[in-house]
Amino acid sequence: MKTLVPAALVLATAVLSTPAMAQFQKPEDAIKYRKASFTVMAAHFGRIGAMANGRVPFDAKVAADNAAIVETMSKLPWAAFGPGTDKGDTRALPDIWKEQDAFKAGADKMQAEIGKLVAATKTGNLDSVKAAFGAAGQTCKACHDDFRKD
Amino acid sequence: MKTLVPAALVLATAVLSTPAMAQFQKPEDAIKYRKASFTVMAAHFGRIGAMANGRVPFDAKVAADNAAIVETMSKLPWAAFGPGTDKGDTRALPDIWKEQDAFKAGADKMQAEIGKLVAATKTGNLDSVKAAFGAAGQTCKACHDDFRKD
Repeated sequence: MKTLVPAALVLATAVLSTPAMAQFQKPEDAIKYRKASFTVMAAHFGRIGAMANGRVPFDAKVAADNAAIVETMSKLPWAAFGPGTDKGDTRALPDIWKEQDAFKAGADKMQAEIGKLVAATKTGNLDSVKAAFGAAGQTCKACHDDFRKD
Repeated sequence: MKTLVPAALVLATAVLSTPAMAQFQKPEDAIKYRKASFTVMAAHFGRIGAMANGRVPFDAKVAADNAAIVETMSKLPWAAFGPGTDKGDTRALPDIWKEQDAFKAGADKMQAEIGKLVAATKTGNLDSVKAAFGAAGQTCKACHDDFRKD
């Protein structure tokens, strides 16, 4: 007998389910955690944006320090989108769980662009930081458009 | 003329005021950010605790990975206790701003113990992790007892 396991289910088990739920006692804990990690990430991403957009003077060291924090945070929220975390105090849309391949691709793309932003801040070149910040920001927006309630 | 500047004011200016407020547009943004950073820190600290307390099997790599995140997070909240952030959606007690030397000493002590926890996880020795986790946990509790509403 051939057992067909949908790719999305395999992904859910591997990426979203077992390890995630072992880490959170209750779904609301996972929701609170992932929102917190996005909050911290956004704050530090915004500080790079303030420099990229000329609102504050560019300081390469400050940009690199903030980018390092953004990179750490960018890895965290995904494990907290496990089963049962679609309801509650969250703006997460059901498509996160219905289109897990697309959601994971978006998360991966974001982390890749954040990696490039980290590299750009290390060059100390403002134009590189601006370009990498813009590209990373697009990956935030893309996921928010598709997977987050307005 | 001799100008006397109270130590607490110097500290407030150096540690809590200018850089902090430049980073947050509104006091509520600072409050949300510091709570988020504590939330993420507590989640990862708790995962080390689960191993230290025997609730989950000890995995040195997992412990070290979590300790690294805790260390990153342990540096973040303090800049968000600036002037005007004592009111709002917060359990922070007024003593944070009245006894800034003590508050800063508590924050420094916590970060020092987290540094020891990071070192302990790198040894791969569970007993060392247990000891360092306990000592770090005491610094969390000490500040919560003194500076946070129940």
